[in-house]
Amino acid sequence: MTSTASSLDRLAQHRQQFPALLTKHYFNYGGQGVLPESAIAAIAQAHHNSQQQGPFSTQVNQWMSQEMAQTREAIAHQLHVSPHTISLTENVTIGCNIVLWGIDWQAGDHLLLTDCEHPGVVGAALELQQRFGIEVSICPMMETLNQGDPAAVIAQHLRPTTRLVVLSHILWNTGQVLPLQAIVAQCHQFRDESGGDRPPVRVLVDAAQSIGVLPLDLEALGVDAYAFTGHKWLCGPAGLGGLYLSPAAREVIRPTMIGWRGVTKNAQGHPTGFSTDSQRYEIATSDFTLYGALRGAIALHDQWGTSQDRYQRICQLSSYLWHQLQDMPQITCLRTTPPEAGLVSFTIANTPHAPLVSTLEQKGFLLRTILEPDCIRACVHYLTLEQEIDQLIQALRQLL
Amino acid sequence: MTSTASSLDRLAQHRQQFPALLTKHYFNYGGQGVLPESAIAAIAQAHHNSQQQGPFSTQVNQWMSQEMAQTREAIAHQLHVSPHTISLTENVTIGCNIVLWGIDWQAGDHLLLTDCEHPGVVGAALELQQRFGIEVSICPMMETLNQGDPAAVIAQHLRPTTRLVVLSHILWNTGQVLPLQAIVAQCHQFRDESGGDRPPVRVLVDAAQSIGVLPLDLEALGVDAYAFTGHKWLCGPAGLGGLYLSPAAREVIRPTMIGWRGVTKNAQGHPTGFSTDSQRYEIATSDFTLYGALRGAIALHDQWGTSQDRYQRICQLSSYLWHQLQDMPQITCLRTTPPEAGLVSFTIANTPHAPLVSTLEQKGFLLRTILEPDCIRACVHYLTLEQEIDQLIQALRQLL
Repeated sequence: MTSTASSLDRLAQHRQQFPALLTKHYFNYGGQGVLPESAIAAIAQAHHNSQQQGPFSTQVNQWMSQEMAQTREAIAHQLHVSPHTISLTENVTIGCNIVLWGIDWQAGDHLLLTDCEHPGVVGAALELQQRFGIEVSICPMMETLNQGDPAAVIAQHLRPTTRLVVLSHILWNTGQVLPLQAIVAQCHQFRDESGGDRPPVRVLVDAAQSIGVLPLDLEALGVDAYAFTGHKWLCGPAGLGGLYLSPAAREVIRPTMIGWRGVTKNAQGHPTGFSTDSQRYEIATSDFTLYGALRGAIALHDQWGTSQDRYQRICQLSSYLWHQLQDMPQITCLRTTPPEAGLVSFTIANTPHAPLVSTLEQKGFLLRTILEPDCIRACVHYLTLEQEIDQLIQALRQLL
Repeated sequence: MTSTASSLDRLAQHRQQFPALLTKHYFNYGGQGVLPESAIAAIAQAHHNSQQQGPFSTQVNQWMSQEMAQTREAIAHQLHVSPHTISLTENVTIGCNIVLWGIDWQAGDHLLLTDCEHPGVVGAALELQQRFGIEVSICPMMETLNQGDPAAVIAQHLRPTTRLVVLSHILWNTGQVLPLQAIVAQCHQFRDESGGDRPPVRVLVDAAQSIGVLPLDLEALGVDAYAFTGHKWLCGPAGLGGLYLSPAAREVIRPTMIGWRGVTKNAQGHPTGFSTDSQRYEIATSDFTLYGALRGAIALHDQWGTSQDRYQRICQLSSYLWHQLQDMPQITCLRTTPPEAGLVSFTIANTPHAPLVSTLEQKGFLLRTILEPDCIRACVHYLTLEQEIDQLIQALRQLL
């Protein structure tokens, strides 16, 4: 790689704001991002302000509403959508569940997932199968990592009864970036081709690994629903995520878990319906101190560079790591070409992965194992140093 | 009241640990409790530890599991139940929703609520009505505040088709404590009397205003489900609550919103079912820094006195406040006898409540209005000083 001395200095300075980076070599951004020191301070400050002015008071309630509104705005800006399309959630899984449970499923309806979805989301789909007698099927996406056409795989598995396709924008196990725009267009067109009065095939995207990595324009992608979290690649605190729903999808996805944040009320405080915007899916009391922390983390990334700059650097670094891993005879990268994002998954011949990852953790290199496919996953962010990749490779060479 | 000088000294010292109490007179415990300074420090420390050791690492994952287990234990101890019956949730509303959505509703089933339930919970019931064609009815509990028998009201509204009764242990608007043990026994017996193969009438309790106030023994009360939050009378941080489900109820309440925390997995990481204990209802990533903060708050209360001691003091203080309010000709307390808990609701003749509460807030007295019945609610906790009540009365006298 050809980073200049001045850009490395700037990055080194930027990294000083993330305490987790000062004591180790971090390759687990796909599990959880590193929290800026300023975010920890913002959380404590929010608690102190709340105690100073409340905690339950008109003043604090107004401040909380502003915090939520500003956070929807900051997220919406990252996704190039209107703040009215954003619901704040506790995590990505709840965002997925809102959509899964919000459809008026009829027995015989079909729900299609890929074989690379997170177990929680698969578990929710299986529960829907049991409750409503829908058909759940899983299409083989993992095998398209190096050959084949992901959009074609989806197309082959759509049925006249398909109402929802659930897939990840970036697959959490292999790191593959799915061609989302093509897949969505195809799902939406499928409705027209099959004719009749069936509802359209909607696409729910698990964005756990894509938000904070890819430059995103959700309207251009055409997705119906995009469920994300702030605590991975956006480096916000755990416990705050969100859900984008297109205005058309919002018309048909009913709120399921319901609380005071989503309902409208009359003069006596009785519920009269749901908020017209995506706040209708928000439930009740959350940790309000996390809002400013996430916004601060997003602002830090934007200070370093645009989403395009950051994605470009992520790809440069993952390519750099991939090439070095490829040079080691015991190691096989799952991808036969450089990754398109920050996740680099690989296997090691004749070496159980879990003990090796454990040894690496003791040496200050944080990676994780994946069960299927059986592999080790290393994540690089724009925050990663080339030097850290060199040191990881060196550590692997010493251990193998 | 007859507090001794030494007990007042001790309380004054205890109160120093709650920064919110140092700058105002706080009467909004039913909205949100006051957070100890040590809890704010514990949250920052948990973030720092997590960044130091992770944030995503074997070490942090183990620590998080321990944190969750210890928190279920601390809560279970307060409720006199086994930790296996406790699910950690984000708030009380989600606990209620878990039960509401976990029943295999059939068209025509009946759900009974009281007329004093929180709008979010009512909204969820109305959504179930729309989705599953169940019958939702609301029984008049508010009018039993001073006369009549709450258990008889419930009994009169049970139907052969009733499957769930939703009520609050302490009504959030009038402060009435419902005779929960009698109501539950009656609901459970109703099944036998009606005969046939109908499922039993289960009782879901909204415990927002009772946990941290009443000494509780949930097994003795016989409730099926008890949904609570840590951020009101327990004085924990906002964003952490829980749900107790009896082992029998757990057999029939299916998980709805599903994520990695509740599912069991095979060697490939595929979901195989749900945890056998109440962890099955937990969803996904939460703010793990809140666990220690809530446990610390609970420990502080226990240091001051037993749950019996605290409840006794709460009742002494609310009685003291009630008597003083009764002495003011413009004021009418909703209760005609002293309250049985910490909520004291009252009306003021010829004075709009909202502007008065706003003026009081500016003067450093934090209370709130309730829409139905139209009243002002003042909450006293064991932390409240007699002197603060005197000052509130003095402020009211000046304003009226």
